[in-house]
Amino acid sequence: MPTLEFWYEFASTYSYPAAWRIDRLALAAGVKVVWRPLFLGPLFHKQQGMSDSPFNVVEVKGRYMWRDMERVCQAEMLPFRRPSAFPRRSLLALRLALVGGHRGWIANFSRAVYAANFGQDRDIGDPAVLALLVKEVGGDPVADFHEADSDAIKAELRDNVAEAEAKGVFGAPSFYIPSNKTPGGELFWGNDRLEQAVAWAAAH
Amino acid sequence: MPTLEFWYEFASTYSYPAAWRIDRLALAAGVKVVWRPLFLGPLFHKQQGMSDSPFNVVEVKGRYMWRDMERVCQAEMLPFRRPSAFPRRSLLALRLALVGGHRGWIANFSRAVYAANFGQDRDIGDPAVLALLVKEVGGDPVADFHEADSDAIKAELRDNVAEAEAKGVFGAPSFYIPSNKTPGGELFWGNDRLEQAVAWAAAH
Repeated sequence: MPTLEFWYEFASTYSYPAAWRIDRLALAAGVKVVWRPLFLGPLFHKQQGMSDSPFNVVEVKGRYMWRDMERVCQAEMLPFRRPSAFPRRSLLALRLALVGGHRGWIANFSRAVYAANFGQDRDIGDPAVLALLVKEVGGDPVADFHEADSDAIKAELRDNVAEAEAKGVFGAPSFYIPSNKTPGGELFWGNDRLEQAVAWAAAH
Repeated sequence: MPTLEFWYEFASTYSYPAAWRIDRLALAAGVKVVWRPLFLGPLFHKQQGMSDSPFNVVEVKGRYMWRDMERVCQAEMLPFRRPSAFPRRSLLALRLALVGGHRGWIANFSRAVYAANFGQDRDIGDPAVLALLVKEVGGDPVADFHEADSDAIKAELRDNVAEAEAKGVFGAPSFYIPSNKTPGGELFWGNDRLEQAVAWAAAH
């Protein structure tokens, strides 16, 4: 079965519609999705010298993006509320997603985190909010928070960032189709490229 | 008839497919396109502090963009050759486009400039190349170059940049639908948003 890697970060606005669209599109095309959480801060800083969201750094771009998100979410019938804080701390949520990767609830949890942050303006940096979401998707907050804090999970997230960088990722959402051919896999960037990425995975 | 403003700059890669797609899509939707050439350099510098293309400033982003352009142009059956110099000087071509706006050949000329730069790797900063293109679209190189150098055309380009900035433009291609309602018009950014922009213009 063809495989598509979905690289995302909870601070990324356009990853929200992508996360809610990808399983449906992949199912229709017979493509398997691998959910790959990514901590973007270090990558942004290393590649672009930024220490804040580009949408905060360039105000006119940010203003456009919020209006565009409103339109995109409306077209997808996804709830949208501009978060009262942006970007929110994503590190704990990302580590919990990795735990969910081992327990089978990563996709449900990731979608729930996006909906909380961008649909309901809840603080996904707050452990209490995340504990509720873990519970909702069938996890065990006590055990899962404990594991999220383990050296193994921390290393897994660091390894993800390094792997993403090696694959040419520089933003989220990104979609990567592994390949045995030269020069390696195919990368697509942005929610707008999801359809093309799924089609590419199905065809190659 | 609903109107869509097409804001573009000859140094902008993704404006190339947009320029070759927009008239067809607008015709199908019953929308009138107004071609608005824009000098992006000053705007990039003012809004984002950049004095080079973002695709040169952030190398990993540039590498992705060239591969993506290859795919986008292939899907649209547009010739694509990565220019041996990027970005090329666009100022004279932009002023000539404004002259073409007064003479009725702005769309044909603008498409020809894009095809020369991104399809054939010709230097669109070279007056000799531009003279051929002006001739091809039915202009008169001697008279049109003279007018392109006039104070009136220089002022028109400066006014375009100021108007674009006032409308929230920060990159190209951008599509703007004027409106009498609060809070003014609707802005869409990027070749990927062309379909939505045309649909918005047709519906509002």
